[in-house]
Amino acid sequence: MADHPHYPQSVAELSERELLARIFPRLGGPRMLLGPGDDAALLRAPDGRTAISIDTLVQDQDFRLRWPGGYRTTGYDVGWKCAAQNLSDVNAMGAVATSLVVSLTLPAHTPVSWVEGLADGLSAALRALGAEDCAVAGGDLGRGGQLVVTAAVTGDLQGRKPVLRSGARPGDVLAVCGALGEAAAGLALLESSLDYARLEGRERALTAVQSRPCPPLAAGPVAAAAGAHAMMDISDGLVRDAGRLCSASGVRVDLDPEVLRAEAELLAGTAGKLGADPLSWVLGGGEDHGLLAAFAPDTVLPRGFRRVGTVLARGDGANPVSVGGAAPAAAGWDHFGG
Amino acid sequence: MADHPHYPQSVAELSERELLARIFPRLGGPRMLLGPGDDAALLRAPDGRTAISIDTLVQDQDFRLRWPGGYRTTGYDVGWKCAAQNLSDVNAMGAVATSLVVSLTLPAHTPVSWVEGLADGLSAALRALGAEDCAVAGGDLGRGGQLVVTAAVTGDLQGRKPVLRSGARPGDVLAVCGALGEAAAGLALLESSLDYARLEGRERALTAVQSRPCPPLAAGPVAAAAGAHAMMDISDGLVRDAGRLCSASGVRVDLDPEVLRAEAELLAGTAGKLGADPLSWVLGGGEDHGLLAAFAPDTVLPRGFRRVGTVLARGDGANPVSVGGAAPAAAGWDHFGG
Repeated sequence: MADHPHYPQSVAELSERELLARIFPRLGGPRMLLGPGDDAALLRAPDGRTAISIDTLVQDQDFRLRWPGGYRTTGYDVGWKCAAQNLSDVNAMGAVATSLVVSLTLPAHTPVSWVEGLADGLSAALRALGAEDCAVAGGDLGRGGQLVVTAAVTGDLQGRKPVLRSGARPGDVLAVCGALGEAAAGLALLESSLDYARLEGRERALTAVQSRPCPPLAAGPVAAAAGAHAMMDISDGLVRDAGRLCSASGVRVDLDPEVLRAEAELLAGTAGKLGADPLSWVLGGGEDHGLLAAFAPDTVLPRGFRRVGTVLARGDGANPVSVGGAAPAAAGWDHFGG
Repeated sequence: MADHPHYPQSVAELSERELLARIFPRLGGPRMLLGPGDDAALLRAPDGRTAISIDTLVQDQDFRLRWPGGYRTTGYDVGWKCAAQNLSDVNAMGAVATSLVVSLTLPAHTPVSWVEGLADGLSAALRALGAEDCAVAGGDLGRGGQLVVTAAVTGDLQGRKPVLRSGARPGDVLAVCGALGEAAAGLALLESSLDYARLEGRERALTAVQSRPCPPLAAGPVAAAAGAHAMMDISDGLVRDAGRLCSASGVRVDLDPEVLRAEAELLAGTAGKLGADPLSWVLGGGEDHGLLAAFAPDTVLPRGFRRVGTVLARGDGANPVSVGGAAPAAAGWDHFGG
């Protein structure tokens, strides 16, 4: 197609309306009270409350268009990841996502096909992750020097109490749903000089976890219904996010070194190949988008959750998160790193 | 403060938590069911529906940090404008804003004081524009190569029907609330080589309209209650936005040349100084964030609205918007311009 003079290759060759006409048909989704195309969209909020959150992906910060090993991030990847990380925030409240609104900032040379892929990836993530009630309700398009994709997500608690970070109590079981460190392993593979085209099944799959994460969306509402005392999305690494749960709840937690070692063991082969420490991925790796939750000690953990530690009364120590009573070996991700 | 070695000057010198600690206290606002700090915030949606929209400001596209005449865009300006343009979208549905969630993408060298100013500007706009029921519900912080500020806004229809773009009927009065062309005049002043420091009262005020727009937030719900058939935000220029209303409603409109001439006359002094055509500002200037609405011919126009034309049955002509029966002299703003 590249030599056909009238085939639009970059977004600079289309008007806003023409670009939107290529995006809207790809979005599909459930019927809303009022969908995209007016000044605002209109969602149902049947229980009289709406949960809301916002999250952004920035080129060269949250993804590279081309990684050292040769993998090229597709629009589909970015659309999927944008949906997934937003859906995960609503999941962590115990809510069900009802809409996404998406703002795209696009350099003039962005291929139109990349933007179409982004719309496809958004849609596919909603379907594949089981967010059947979530529609892409609208958006905004503009130019900029680098790709920036922001989505805001709304959620419906379906009459349940929201599960906050602040409800953990001493004696609670600390549990995780979803992988630990896989997204970090995938990131390390993409950042390495290993030729992406030659990666084998397991390692190819780890890069997919990084590019197209699959948060366990069924688990949030189930944990809420099971009476989870506290819950949050693990987006910046287990230790850092557990520390946030501790701050909000006024507790500390001790992680079980045996459990963490077993988690790390699953990533040991890849880590060995890269000269990395798999335990640091498990403790500090971001973007897994699983759930961290505290349950009363007598709760039968809902399917998919596994115990990783214990909630304890806050002591005098500075560090709210320990591993077998000692300081953890890795901290996690800070967006500013100051 | 610049020579105090421990005073943080750029966001790179703070952790995410430290930066958030400087932002949150500036946000204030009404009490929410659950405010910022958890995975998602929680709003009331008393009438069982939530209106939602999203809008983005990008450095060097939507604002310059330093304009040719010397004006430096403050964080306060960008925070104000981000709030205002989002609030305007909800206003145009006839709804009342209930929350903003804000995502900031910040270059490492961004002064912390600029970000604090942004939070202050957001807050000030909510208060000054009368959005007393709107809280900053949460946000997201990350790094990037240029400043990108995105907000999503939610609104409450308070039991009313939303006013769509699609309801205009032949015979309706086309009316406007808010200024026409002032933001474009302000933009032209900022883009000119006129020394900002020497601008006089009226022209200084026009640049303020561009930097800190004041959408008429009381007017949207009032127009809805008065039975407006159709309504939208004028963000990309009167002619372009009227064309969108026509497309959605299956009608055309004829604008009154006398009315437009009187509007242009208000900007003639500034236009003369810049060698510009004030009518092109009135017809094509973006970012005024007033309201364009269609009312039944016998409606007493709500306070603040003035007649600018008439809705007609769609004819055979290609152009849905005419001025005294002829083609308009200016088109409006397209974000991609293809």
